Amino acid sequence: MIEPERVEAQNTTLLAGHEADLEAVAACLERRGIDAEVVIGALQAFSAAAPSWALGTGGTRFGRFPTGGEPRTLEEKLEDVAAINAVTGATRSVSLHVPWDLPRDPGAIRERAASLGLAIDAMNSNTFQDNPETTQDGKVSFKHGSFANPDPAVREAAVAHNTAVIDLGVELGSRAITIWLADGINHPGQADLRRQFERVLEGLREVYAHLPPDWELYTEHKPFEPAFYATVNADWGSSLLLAQGLGPQAKCLVDLGHHLPNANIEQIVARLAMVDRLGGFHFNDSKYGDDDLTVGSIDPYQLFLIVRELVAYGGGRMPELAYMIDQSCNVKDPLEDIAQSTVALQHAVGQALLVDGTALAVAQDEGDAAMGEAILQRAFRFDVGPLAAEARRRNGAAIDPVGALRGVGYRRARIAERGAAAVATGL
Amino acid sequence: MIEPERVEAQNTTLLAGHEADLEAVAACLERRGIDAEVVIGALQAFSAAAPSWALGTGGTRFGRFPTGGEPRTLEEKLEDVAAINAVTGATRSVSLHVPWDLPRDPGAIRERAASLGLAIDAMNSNTFQDNPETTQDGKVSFKHGSFANPDPAVREAAVAHNTAVIDLGVELGSRAITIWLADGINHPGQADLRRQFERVLEGLREVYAHLPPDWELYTEHKPFEPAFYATVNADWGSSLLLAQGLGPQAKCLVDLGHHLPNANIEQIVARLAMVDRLGGFHFNDSKYGDDDLTVGSIDPYQLFLIVRELVAYGGGRMPELAYMIDQSCNVKDPLEDIAQSTVALQHAVGQALLVDGTALAVAQDEGDAAMGEAILQRAFRFDVGPLAAEARRRNGAAIDPVGALRGVGYRRARIAERGAAAVATGL
Amino acid sequence: MIEPERVEAQNTTLLAGHEADLEAVAACLERRGIDAEVVIGALQAFSAAAPSWALGTGGTRFGRFPTGGEPRTLEEKLEDVAAINAVTGATRSVSLHVPWDLPRDPGAIRERAASLGLAIDAMNSNTFQDNPETTQDGKVSFKHGSFANPDPAVREAAVAHNTAVIDLGVELGSRAITIWLADGINHPGQADLRRQFERVLEGLREVYAHLPPDWELYTEHKPFEPAFYATVNADWGSSLLLAQGLGPQAKCLVDLGHHLPNANIEQIVARLAMVDRLGGFHFNDSKYGDDDLTVGSIDPYQLFLIVRELVAYGGGRMPELAYMIDQSCNVKDPLEDIAQSTVALQHAVGQALLVDGTALAVAQDEGDAAMGEAILQRAFRFDVGPLAAEARRRNGAAIDPVGALRGVGYRRARIAERGAAAVATGL
Amino acid sequence: MIEPERVEAQNTTLLAGHEADLEAVAACLERRGIDAEVVIGALQAFSAAAPSWALGTGGTRFGRFPTGGEPRTLEEKLEDVAAINAVTGATRSVSLHVPWDLPRDPGAIRERAASLGLAIDAMNSNTFQDNPETTQDGKVSFKHGSFANPDPAVREAAVAHNTAVIDLGVELGSRAITIWLADGINHPGQADLRRQFERVLEGLREVYAHLPPDWELYTEHKPFEPAFYATVNADWGSSLLLAQGLGPQAKCLVDLGHHLPNANIEQIVARLAMVDRLGGFHFNDSKYGDDDLTVGSIDPYQLFLIVRELVAYGGGRMPELAYMIDQSCNVKDPLEDIAQSTVALQHAVGQALLVDGTALAVAQDEGDAAMGEAILQRAFRFDVGPLAAEARRRNGAAIDPVGALRGVGYRRARIAERGAAAVATGL
Repeated sequence: MIEPERVEAQNTTLLAGHEADLEAVAACLERRGIDAEVVIGALQAFSAAAPSWALGTGGTRFGRFPTGGEPRTLEEKLEDVAAINAVTGATRSVSLHVPWDLPRDPGAIRERAASLGLAIDAMNSNTFQDNPETTQDGKVSFKHGSFANPDPAVREAAVAHNTAVIDLGVELGSRAITIWLADGINHPGQADLRRQFERVLEGLREVYAHLPPDWELYTEHKPFEPAFYATVNADWGSSLLLAQGLGPQAKCLVDLGHHLPNANIEQIVARLAMVDRLGGFHFNDSKYGDDDLTVGSIDPYQLFLIVRELVAYGGGRMPELAYMIDQSCNVKDPLEDIAQSTVALQHAVGQALLVDGTALAVAQDEGDAAMGEAILQRAFRFDVGPLAAEARRRNGAAIDPVGALRGVGYRRARIAERGAAAVATGL
Repeated sequence: MIEPERVEAQNTTLLAGHEADLEAVAACLERRGIDAEVVIGALQAFSAAAPSWALGTGGTRFGRFPTGGEPRTLEEKLEDVAAINAVTGATRSVSLHVPWDLPRDPGAIRERAASLGLAIDAMNSNTFQDNPETTQDGKVSFKHGSFANPDPAVREAAVAHNTAVIDLGVELGSRAITIWLADGINHPGQADLRRQFERVLEGLREVYAHLPPDWELYTEHKPFEPAFYATVNADWGSSLLLAQGLGPQAKCLVDLGHHLPNANIEQIVARLAMVDRLGGFHFNDSKYGDDDLTVGSIDPYQLFLIVRELVAYGGGRMPELAYMIDQSCNVKDPLEDIAQSTVALQHAVGQALLVDGTALAVAQDEGDAAMGEAILQRAFRFDVGPLAAEARRRNGAAIDPVGALRGVGYRRARIAERGAAAVATGL
Repeated sequence: MIEPERVEAQNTTLLAGHEADLEAVAACLERRGIDAEVVIGALQAFSAAAPSWALGTGGTRFGRFPTGGEPRTLEEKLEDVAAINAVTGATRSVSLHVPWDLPRDPGAIRERAASLGLAIDAMNSNTFQDNPETTQDGKVSFKHGSFANPDPAVREAAVAHNTAVIDLGVELGSRAITIWLADGINHPGQADLRRQFERVLEGLREVYAHLPPDWELYTEHKPFEPAFYATVNADWGSSLLLAQGLGPQAKCLVDLGHHLPNANIEQIVARLAMVDRLGGFHFNDSKYGDDDLTVGSIDPYQLFLIVRELVAYGGGRMPELAYMIDQSCNVKDPLEDIAQSTVALQHAVGQALLVDGTALAVAQDEGDAAMGEAILQRAFRFDVGPLAAEARRRNGAAIDPVGALRGVGYRRARIAERGAAAVATGL
Repeated sequence: MIEPERVEAQNTTLLAGHEADLEAVAACLERRGIDAEVVIGALQAFSAAAPSWALGTGGTRFGRFPTGGEPRTLEEKLEDVAAINAVTGATRSVSLHVPWDLPRDPGAIRERAASLGLAIDAMNSNTFQDNPETTQDGKVSFKHGSFANPDPAVREAAVAHNTAVIDLGVELGSRAITIWLADGINHPGQADLRRQFERVLEGLREVYAHLPPDWELYTEHKPFEPAFYATVNADWGSSLLLAQGLGPQAKCLVDLGHHLPNANIEQIVARLAMVDRLGGFHFNDSKYGDDDLTVGSIDPYQLFLIVRELVAYGGGRMPELAYMIDQSCNVKDPLEDIAQSTVALQHAVGQALLVDGTALAVAQDEGDAAMGEAILQRAFRFDVGPLAAEARRRNGAAIDPVGALRGVGYRRARIAERGAAAVATGL
């Protein structure tokens, strides 16, 4: 546990510089007619869930190089998320992945999370692997698909797993299930593209029917990996067709790494928002495919443009969606990596809030492309770092989250406690 | 004009070899339990429209190198299409582009086309350029968009142009309008992504309201070019939203070059077919963007897979959709290029018809990926050339279309008639 | 002409705010141990050439929407560049394109440029179009390539044109020639890939032999457009092979838009720098292909990473290379667009100079990916706007370049002078 | 073991049909002036190595679904390769991967391979995982790179491993080592791009110095995965720089899946061949990234164009390079998958040999793009299936390789022998 006073101690040496920076930045904003306090307040309110499966070192099919001290149990995962939240103040929930996170006593987990200041975010089901719990001890296999499988017994297993995840989520206090399906094919001819989609929709309807009235179901599209020729829920158009085929509690979740090269993701976000089918986000960044890199680490301007669409959808503030950071921390300490992602999100939210919407609308109405672009860039180029740091500080967290994690020796202590060879479940 | 007897004369020297090849191929098919006559018949029935704007040499922003003898009038364009049809027997209609093809006397054009054996296919409107006819002699401009323009006067001009194109099409005997919009932006902030879409939908609704009851309206999506940051109708999801927002006479048209890198086009085709919103095709091939190359010249297997989805949608035969070849003939003689594209389509249709659907369904139900793939490949690897040649021959056309065009000296005669410097309208 | 006092007048109302911002920013940097004066000085020293062909409105094959008041002559182009320089203070040279810019009296042009405070940067030849001057009044054509053409007469014309451009450049005071070739093919089989390369190298050797001893020759690669299947100088590997085959005065020029999707351009820059074959840059930004958008407008972090590689190559400062802005201004006023690009470059240079190289090296040696990344991001996130503005101001230019262009009514005056229908040569 | 007579028995029922097809095809070729026997002979001579690591089911980071009966030892791997060769007659060598394939008694393995009719192809080292044998029982780690690692001890371990692989290869009768490095970074700033390259070159020089005089060393480039921001040997340009920096025994190996989207691979092949640095191939196919799918299963025309460049390089025949099939068999039986890949290669080689090189050269010299393309397509569209089948039959293998594997019950027998849970080493 990272107690508030230890974080505060880490802040001490940085405080004077931070306050000077903050004052300078606030004065700059004041000259632009912007109240820094409003931005700081909005940043304090923002939070993105941590994924339980990214607390251990991630890997590729070529290998994995563990960090040491990785969480061995769901309880230890909660502790790690609490540690991230202790330094960011913006990681106030955790998203679980079943069966990787299958608690024996859901009530106890819920209480433990609450005691750590954490809520349980959207639940995630897993039909891309064979696990005793999901494939009935090997009686069926998801090798050739789950919901899209030609074998009805497999499809039933997929439905049963998802409804079980919902039931578990209810006990944990979650309010949503995110369904990412690996269903797809590697070879032309391997399956009928249309029948695959119809089966998936049919199966999801059974899951949807099981949804409590205050829950939402998110369909998450992805063009490829692990399927390398055709994926059933490959793009936002397919995801939307699924949501339309299910009902009003079904929405689409956008993972920033699940797009073809050159896709305009902010426009996809605007489209789904327009038809009120935007449910949530898996934030990360990527250069090639679903690289699952640190949020904002490859293209921070794109992140800004996406968040600005969110703020536009929210009428000037971040709308209440299911925000989650979804990355694979292959070479960094996972906790540091998620903290860096959270900070990057805070920057993007802060920048998006600085956009002068009124002036932008005028420029757009006048076809003044140079000015429209300049208005966005002016917000993006502004250094919101001190505002984000202040929001963290006021939330009891760290001016410098990674520095604080190192300063308190969190990883070192975990290696001592959990062992250098401890390996977490996940990807 | 290329009279049938001149084509027949071109076939003479090839006939013996062709017949031997055909006999061999038919015998091979018979050993597989397939009646070559059925395939030949289906190929005889197939036709794809020629685009009036690709009869001259195409170009890029970097330049254009005219061929000589290009058609100077719509009448001459019809003659060129008739020449292509004379050698392919599968180019029995032409798709016009207004105002590039704005006939003074539509009735005369309709008659002239009929006398050449040509029907008028889908009409194409043009709001990506300022033309006196469409932008009211310079009173408005499409520089900042047509339907998506913030200026209502421009939007009205866009509607007026499209309804005028429909009216013209009615006189010409057309039954559909294809609307490809350049609307989009080059710079983040230049316009509001959502408002742009809403305006486009609003404008298209006015056009749709003008549609005769036996007409269809096709929305054609494209991710980029000429807009380089965000295009309003960028992908099949957007195109589908437009069609859904219009009504049952609205369908989506797929141009094979209008996709992001690595897109699975055959799956997009299957999706649109599934929801009965697949209206037509602009056939071409590409390696990088909207390269508008000869059909099947870069990835003939992809073409085969797309056509197979069509045959599946058509219940074992090519469904009645608006098929058109849409290419830019930059370095080949345009007529030869379109003829080669037509032949490539004939090959793909022939191969698709050879797929053993029953065996494929069995393999797919058994999750037998190796066999499913092998069944498709067996059809693709078969040389349907002699079948396509025979279909052409029976339609009064050429065994070797390009050879026939050269043999009768069509281009040479056109240069003599129209001049070496004649340049056609178009891209 | 935009006289210094008119720019100063534009600065007046912004001055107080600018000075406050500058003071705040300098104090922030001081807290980080960085002297703002050093950065400002480096920014004052930086300049990038303007391309003579982007002073008019750009277009695509689908159309072009002129701005009005475009320069009709080379003299007017020089005036426009001087106007850009008047507001940016960092556009102190112009790059010409022959035969679009073929002065009758080179000496007079050189003098005129000098009187406007402009130098003549790298010369650009043009063998991607047929022009009377280059293709000998139609005796030859570059339709099927220039240096790569199978016809020796065409290859000779290409050599002759390039040597003529060098001769002209010598008169104008230039010191380099940039050779971008459209040579390539649209269709597999159209040409022999290897022979094409060998011919290009052979032709370039003749051009290279004509090079004055103090000149450099830059080969500029591009994967596609206008060739859509294979381009001879398609990638940096090919460009390097050409440079290696020519000699030490041959270097490679990198256009930021001339790469396949997802290419790591900063690594390419590092590679060419490593072998001392990095000659120059064509700066722009793009999302899909060679979109030629405003520098830094799509991915400013990538621009920063590229410039940082330059600073690393320069041993802590920008190396002396041939920097040019190369864009196509389709929807913005071209002068405003180039000014915005210049500002974006100033930002990137400023940010790159803020990188703590010593700390970075330590982090890299320790395999501390989180810290290495954080050090770069810290520099990138800093708002160097006031530093760049101050550098411009000290160079006699504008705090707000676009605002100043508008404030002095430059375009309005040009339309009055040159006419609304004046259209510049170029793309 | 699949004895020749069992294969022959499988051929029996297909023989009559095959002979009729073959006769028909040969007659068609005769009409084109081509001797089918020459093609069959060339196909008999062709062989591509099987990779030892693809004999078990492949997977992704999301999971792996074993086939059952996978080889547990190197000896069993050799048996599986022999089985593939029994049905294809074109898999006469195997490529090993160390330390996955670390024989205790190399001499015995060499003998066993020889007794199965197999040679040992290029050796593959592995520095992308930590293995007790390569990372000295955990004393060092390749987490942050091998040759590119800032830690000299790690670099030494990388050199030591590679020289050990060469030593082992000498004992096994191999003649080459293929070095694919995962070295690269996930995060901008994680390492110095230039220093990484220099260290890799430095390390490879030590390995190169260890090379026996009759050996070759192949550098294999790949743009991404497992590194997701920058890979040291990312492209053919980098690979060529490495080979140039090593010496004449160093060549570049091209894996068909190791390219950015839209790359023209056949041109890369032509470039490396031109400078005599083309060493070998890892054949597979892909749609999105390094998908490692069945050869020719996504884009068979591209495969044909690549093989045609090889035949051009070989002066009309396949040159003697290190050909290997490198795929990941995730959903098919690996042996069937490799057999299908081998057949696809035979098709491509057969088609490439049918290209009329003389006519092609004429068309190219005349700038006749339509004819140049048509000549290639004519060869590609020809059904060389019966020729490939005959080549296999004459080599004692199967007319229908997959059918034969199934017919003899190879997998069933292996599951009985090795168990349903046997899992092979590899990816």
